[in-house]
Amino acid sequence: MIESKKYWYHSFMENHKKFIQRAIEISRQKMNEGAGGPFGCVIVKDNAIIAEGWNQVTSTNDPSAHAEVSAIREACKKLNSFQLTGCTIYTSCYPCPMCLGAIYWARPESVYFANTAQDAAKIGFDDAFIYEELQKPFEKFSIPFHQVVAFHKDGLKVFKEWEQKEDKMRY
Amino acid sequence: MIESKKYWYHSFMENHKKFIQRAIEISRQKMNEGAGGPFGCVIVKDNAIIAEGWNQVTSTNDPSAHAEVSAIREACKKLNSFQLTGCTIYTSCYPCPMCLGAIYWARPESVYFANTAQDAAKIGFDDAFIYEELQKPFEKFSIPFHQVVAFHKDGLKVFKEWEQKEDKMRY
Repeated sequence: MIESKKYWYHSFMENHKKFIQRAIEISRQKMNEGAGGPFGCVIVKDNAIIAEGWNQVTSTNDPSAHAEVSAIREACKKLNSFQLTGCTIYTSCYPCPMCLGAIYWARPESVYFANTAQDAAKIGFDDAFIYEELQKPFEKFSIPFHQVVAFHKDGLKVFKEWEQKEDKMRY
Repeated sequence: MIESKKYWYHSFMENHKKFIQRAIEISRQKMNEGAGGPFGCVIVKDNAIIAEGWNQVTSTNDPSAHAEVSAIREACKKLNSFQLTGCTIYTSCYPCPMCLGAIYWARPESVYFANTAQDAAKIGFDDAFIYEELQKPFEKFSIPFHQVVAFHKDGLKVFKEWEQKEDKMRY
């Protein structure tokens, strides 16, 4: 019994290492191929990689195509679900606010990362700046944000309709 | 001269109203069609709508397919650019952290919204919860986050390589 537990733990740790290594390997490979920034991500379910993602902002003209968002899209497509129940995300760098938001919406079990947001800031990525912006009220954002108060009522009507919608699918 | 300024302002305000109304109209229409949650967005350049987006999380199994992210992807595809320079975003609801992150990466001129994050929370959307999570250190997130310290060095090596990469495209 103890031996089998030891074996399980050993095998878990070996896979664990393999997954974060794979995320880092993708970050290098795709950067060298010119896909985008140096970021890679893998999503694991039942001890196997079900999706890989990498930054492809500049090669696909999609500012949302970060490694984590790309991997989440791919994994969800494979699982035929908008939820990553039972999945673990391995990413080469701590997620930016956009990716962190996507992770919260996808609801995986846990997230492992190697580099930090500060590391990303040091090589010119705005993650840390955006995190700072998010601490502020929107009136102080560097991109001007305005509520169109005259249309708040109209907007709220649709929210009321959502509440009353009987066949709605929550997410 | 004064008359023409007045005319310009009047026409600007009429369009302004039209754009936020259109975002709200999309939020209702797509909700009723079963695409996803009650959220719509339009992106405007040179006083014309260049892209429309709506929540399509549950119909496309993509947790990142919120109205703003969908509209940004569409607009960038159209502009053949990963930047929304000179564009204005009109969205039926204040963006969630994921969409706010995407907006920061896309760098539009400004953002107009109708409903608030609190309004969204009241009808069951996690925006406000995720904003609260983002205020915490990652060790306190409800989804467990861990840095794999043993592989930080390996991750940083790739960041160094990015710094030294001569043909990199910043974004």
